[in-house]
Amino acid sequence: MPKLYIGNKNYSSWSMRPWVLLRQAGIAFDEVRVRFDSFEADSEFKRAIGPVSPTGKVPVLVDGDLVVWDTLAIAEYVAETHPDKKLWPASAQARARARSVCAEMHSGFTALRSNCPMNIEADLAATGALIWRDKAGVRADVQRLVDMWSALLAEHGGPLLFGEFTVADAYFAPVCMRLHSYGLPVPPQIAAYVQRVRALPGVKAWIDDALAEKDFLDFEEPYRLRHV
Amino acid sequence: MPKLYIGNKNYSSWSMRPWVLLRQAGIAFDEVRVRFDSFEADSEFKRAIGPVSPTGKVPVLVDGDLVVWDTLAIAEYVAETHPDKKLWPASAQARARARSVCAEMHSGFTALRSNCPMNIEADLAATGALIWRDKAGVRADVQRLVDMWSALLAEHGGPLLFGEFTVADAYFAPVCMRLHSYGLPVPPQIAAYVQRVRALPGVKAWIDDALAEKDFLDFEEPYRLRHV
Ligand SMILES: N[C@@H](CCC(=O)N[C@@H](CS)C(=O)NCC(=O)O)C(=O)O
Ligand SMILES: N[C@@H](CCC(=O)N[C@@H](CS)C(=O)NCC(=O)O)C(=O)O
Repeated sequence: MPKLYIGNKNYSSWSMRPWVLLRQAGIAFDEVRVRFDSFEADSEFKRAIGPVSPTGKVPVLVDGDLVVWDTLAIAEYVAETHPDKKLWPASAQARARARSVCAEMHSGFTALRSNCPMNIEADLAATGALIWRDKAGVRADVQRLVDMWSALLAEHGGPLLFGEFTVADAYFAPVCMRLHSYGLPVPPQIAAYVQRVRALPGVKAWIDDALAEKDFLDFEEPYRLRHV
Repeated sequence: MPKLYIGNKNYSSWSMRPWVLLRQAGIAFDEVRVRFDSFEADSEFKRAIGPVSPTGKVPVLVDGDLVVWDTLAIAEYVAETHPDKKLWPASAQARARARSVCAEMHSGFTALRSNCPMNIEADLAATGALIWRDKAGVRADVQRLVDMWSALLAEHGGPLLFGEFTVADAYFAPVCMRLHSYGLPVPPQIAAYVQRVRALPGVKAWIDDALAEKDFLDFEEPYRLRHV
């Protein structure tokens, strides 16, 4: 059975993507949680993940002798080894677009990612309102998401970006978490997509685990002074 | 025939990857060069690329009605539509590793990328020596490359990362340009790999075009005060 190494569920947006992909697709795997104490070279985290991953980061998938790191490579590997799960869209055109949006996510949306780090348990709506007012980069990133998702939902008719669940929805699941926690304003059809993603069994299972975790880390909490 | 939109050959590291991939694989394409005047919203560049690409960036591949953007998605599309070219390694294990190193490149090596922007025509060895002395992040990025490439060259026996040419070599071609221009110190087997990449016909063709270009842009030149 493949092992997926992940970080804290409340905070680790990259870990969430392959976990949701595997879980939502019904592919069995062992979860190995490597707690984030810090990302310093001498942290427990680095000491645990260093021998497993050449980048010292999570997620990592270990399947027998094979170590696959970096989210997009893990997604491709899972899709390739489970063709029956149809994790990429069936048509070559839609597949190329799904890969385009995932690759765009993989290296982009930096304003949203840096200003609104994932924190599933938190209600950061008040902070989100200030970010929205002051950070043009965040507004531009959200506008791009709204344009992208609206076009895909219209073209494929929903309920998810390419019709049924694909890697693309797993890739944007942490973004849905951020839009929700920070209360960023989006049009109704986008809010409805966010709710549909949150309600997917694979996503809901992650959210439930994140809420139960209650392992709050100051270095992952730029905004809250206390956790209720 | 597919159209590949690219930026200035001397500077555009992302454009270089799919261009080299197509050229080295012997796949015919039309090149559409969109000159970098600036990346401001009202630049000529943005006005030209905006109607083509949803991200307003290069590279973009247009194949009939299909628009594929973001380098990794373009690479996957080219590999998938040209299985005879064997652009990913044949074994599932090697393929997963090739995708891991490409995905790592796609979102990583930020210290090297930001401190040593690609500038093929320039001799930046003096600047490179200062960067090497002062920027621990650059040294760490280069160390990671040395470890990665050494392991792959040893495992597959060279001459390229996975034996014959694959997407991974195209992905690291701009990194080879940087190591060369900035004269960053690497062990002999790595310097030899860099030379082999530079000598690939598809890479050499890009370098020749970059040298002939002579279109120097201040905003892409953080280091040179004049271009000889
Ligand atoms: N490009 C990587 C990014 C992974 C990543 O940055 N993971 C974070 C946790 S969400 C991490 O392990 N950080 C540790 C560090 O930066 O040292 C991927 O897609 O897997
Ligand atoms: N993740 C993108 C990055 C593309 C990118 O940043 N391209 C640069 C040129 S090398 C660009 O078009 N920049 C314009 C801008 O940032 O506005 C990819 O892999 O294609």
